[in-house]
Amino acid sequence: MGTNRLEAFSDGVLAVAITLLVLDIKVPEPTPGRTLGHQLLSNWPNYAAYATSFITIGIIWINHHVMVGRLRRANHVVLVLNLLLLLSIGVLPFATSLMAAYLKQPHGQHLAAAVYGGSFMVMSIAFGAMNRYILIGRPELLKAELPEDQRRRILARNMAGLGPYVIATALAPVSAYVTLAICGAIAIFYGLPLASGSEPASVSDE
Amino acid sequence: MGTNRLEAFSDGVLAVAITLLVLDIKVPEPTPGRTLGHQLLSNWPNYAAYATSFITIGIIWINHHVMVGRLRRANHVVLVLNLLLLLSIGVLPFATSLMAAYLKQPHGQHLAAAVYGGSFMVMSIAFGAMNRYILIGRPELLKAELPEDQRRRILARNMAGLGPYVIATALAPVSAYVTLAICGAIAIFYGLPLASGSEPASVSDE
Amino acid sequence: MGTNRLEAFSDGVLAVAITLLVLDIKVPEPTPGRTLGHQLLSNWPNYAAYATSFITIGIIWINHHVMVGRLRRANHVVLVLNLLLLLSIGVLPFATSLMAAYLKQPHGQHLAAAVYGGSFMVMSIAFGAMNRYILIGRPELLKAELPEDQRRRILARNMAGLGPYVIATALAPVSAYVTLAICGAIAIFYGLPLASGSEPASVSDE
Amino acid sequence: MGTNRLEAFSDGVLAVAITLLVLDIKVPEPTPGRTLGHQLLSNWPNYAAYATSFITIGIIWINHHVMVGRLRRANHVVLVLNLLLLLSIGVLPFATSLMAAYLKQPHGQHLAAAVYGGSFMVMSIAFGAMNRYILIGRPELLKAELPEDQRRRILARNMAGLGPYVIATALAPVSAYVTLAICGAIAIFYGLPLASGSEPASVSDE
Repeated sequence: MGTNRLEAFSDGVLAVAITLLVLDIKVPEPTPGRTLGHQLLSNWPNYAAYATSFITIGIIWINHHVMVGRLRRANHVVLVLNLLLLLSIGVLPFATSLMAAYLKQPHGQHLAAAVYGGSFMVMSIAFGAMNRYILIGRPELLKAELPEDQRRRILARNMAGLGPYVIATALAPVSAYVTLAICGAIAIFYGLPLASGSEPASVSDE
Repeated sequence: MGTNRLEAFSDGVLAVAITLLVLDIKVPEPTPGRTLGHQLLSNWPNYAAYATSFITIGIIWINHHVMVGRLRRANHVVLVLNLLLLLSIGVLPFATSLMAAYLKQPHGQHLAAAVYGGSFMVMSIAFGAMNRYILIGRPELLKAELPEDQRRRILARNMAGLGPYVIATALAPVSAYVTLAICGAIAIFYGLPLASGSEPASVSDE
Repeated sequence: MGTNRLEAFSDGVLAVAITLLVLDIKVPEPTPGRTLGHQLLSNWPNYAAYATSFITIGIIWINHHVMVGRLRRANHVVLVLNLLLLLSIGVLPFATSLMAAYLKQPHGQHLAAAVYGGSFMVMSIAFGAMNRYILIGRPELLKAELPEDQRRRILARNMAGLGPYVIATALAPVSAYVTLAICGAIAIFYGLPLASGSEPASVSDE
Repeated sequence: MGTNRLEAFSDGVLAVAITLLVLDIKVPEPTPGRTLGHQLLSNWPNYAAYATSFITIGIIWINHHVMVGRLRRANHVVLVLNLLLLLSIGVLPFATSLMAAYLKQPHGQHLAAAVYGGSFMVMSIAFGAMNRYILIGRPELLKAELPEDQRRRILARNMAGLGPYVIATALAPVSAYVTLAICGAIAIFYGLPLASGSEPASVSDE
């Protein structure tokens, strides 16, 4: 099986998931005694969670492109691993919504943050598992023959991205704000040109 | 008519349907006297129905790819049969939502399970009807000339997938949980590498 | 400008619109004194409106494919006419929802039916306008040189599809059920192999 | 990295965003003492905001096609700038919904209009930033070698589109209706064949 339709389907799921995020930003009900400005400002957790999730899914899309771009063809396992990755991305609108709804609540904010950070962590693991299978398990699926040490280096750099999400999730019981801040910082870091400079293989190694 | 845009449109519908499933996982309202953890845990039917439907649509996407990949071109009947298949997939978010909402209700759970299992059954029938039309009715639409007995074998293996859904639906009056468990087991079975091993033609026969 | 991305964008909008229709089929609230079966059955206007709109958008997709397939390239006017066509398709989930909500209401059902039939009518006009511009206004955009009388015949057959929608809309003040029945019958008629047989050019004239 | 999947992903996000706009047009609740006709008419801000946003996103899609069509390949910065552009487009369904909900409210209408006009302004800035990076910052990414003065002319014409949105946003404190009218007029202007005539490079300069 070629990779064209794998890419088309994945692009579709990512495009829908990233755009559905906006449904979490609710229009405030006109409320006597509260100005619209005040209501919009008090919704800032929604905007922060929205922007973080949007950029994160966008970065995953870029990385997914690079990972699949290395493939000559896909087998059944690749398709199923890709499906599990999409499943982990498909729940992000829910996790984002949960985070935005509970960040300012007295109860539940730590659990919501753990679910939020944990969802990114699971997504990162699913990505790593798929990449590992391709690079180490079935290098014969690759377009170009890469020496094993280079394949291991790409994978190691890829798995390094998991670390910050583990930290963000582990700190959820301490402060939900810290979890959100770390997830946001990761999104910004990978969006910076610097990131692609310091990790030249992540986008430009084709 | 070539099959490029048929694939693109089908990929689009499947990608939207699979991603819309997440809208059924609702963020719990902050409720005095109930912790968020308890509320999230009590929503497990939503997660089970979500994962089952997600994987099932994903597997259908893989199989759809294989079926359409055999076509050299499409005629009007193929387009309409494909549309009916997409229609049966398009209602899955509703069936999933119904199942999740009623699984733990004292009344209605058996009917909800019958609708859930029945929707997968109808989808399976629509898939089989399209495949039958292509393989038996209009083999001249195929890219490669396949001997008739091989075409009949592919179709038979394909139709065998209908059986478990019939059983899952028939058992809905007995227990809604059994219906959900069978549908989940089918999804897992077809996702396993084993399935593609024991049914080599389902993905790798191109 | 080539037509690849015009097709991709249109496919995307149609795929999203056709799949969003399912959001109108609401899961009934568990209600004491009413069985789920009774509630599901009483929602039949939703299913009828859903199926009608789904098949209609699907047929439009097939026809859109044929229309754009004749183009060698697109100019600014084609892009804008296509955008207006997509706009008329984009409101169909709303019109479908309105029809389903009011069909059984004592008041408003005639207006809802007029909006429903009228939306299909507007969509049909937008389609005809785009087709007219291509076939008559700018035949130099076509891939193959078609003699003018053949182009006029394709257009006339295309515009004939507008008639039933005019009738369906005009009969809305008489009975909303008649409007729905006519729109449903149109969808079934164009889905039948017969339709492509009696109007050979609509799908197979490339 | 080639531009195929960049286009596919962007097309997907734009197609979903443009189609999600319809979710803001709510079916009125049957209300005693108010006819459906009256309720539908009183919802006109929704239709005006819907049509304006739909056409605007459609025009952006056309312009995006032209901008990306000039690229031979994309680097990391292009991908991230494109992601920020998509982020600014992804919030338009929210801004549209806010505008529609508050246009006729005694309080909040000016702020809602400022958010609405401001969202288009931000989108316009994001578009200009991406175009500037491509045309001036990295002309080596372009397919064809364009002389610098021509590249600067394309960019200047592009940035000129920002002006009306600045005015529309600046006038929000005066009247929300004026903001909506200006945004609508911009959409109509760029949709007219005239616009592509007077600004030949905006669509036809390939």
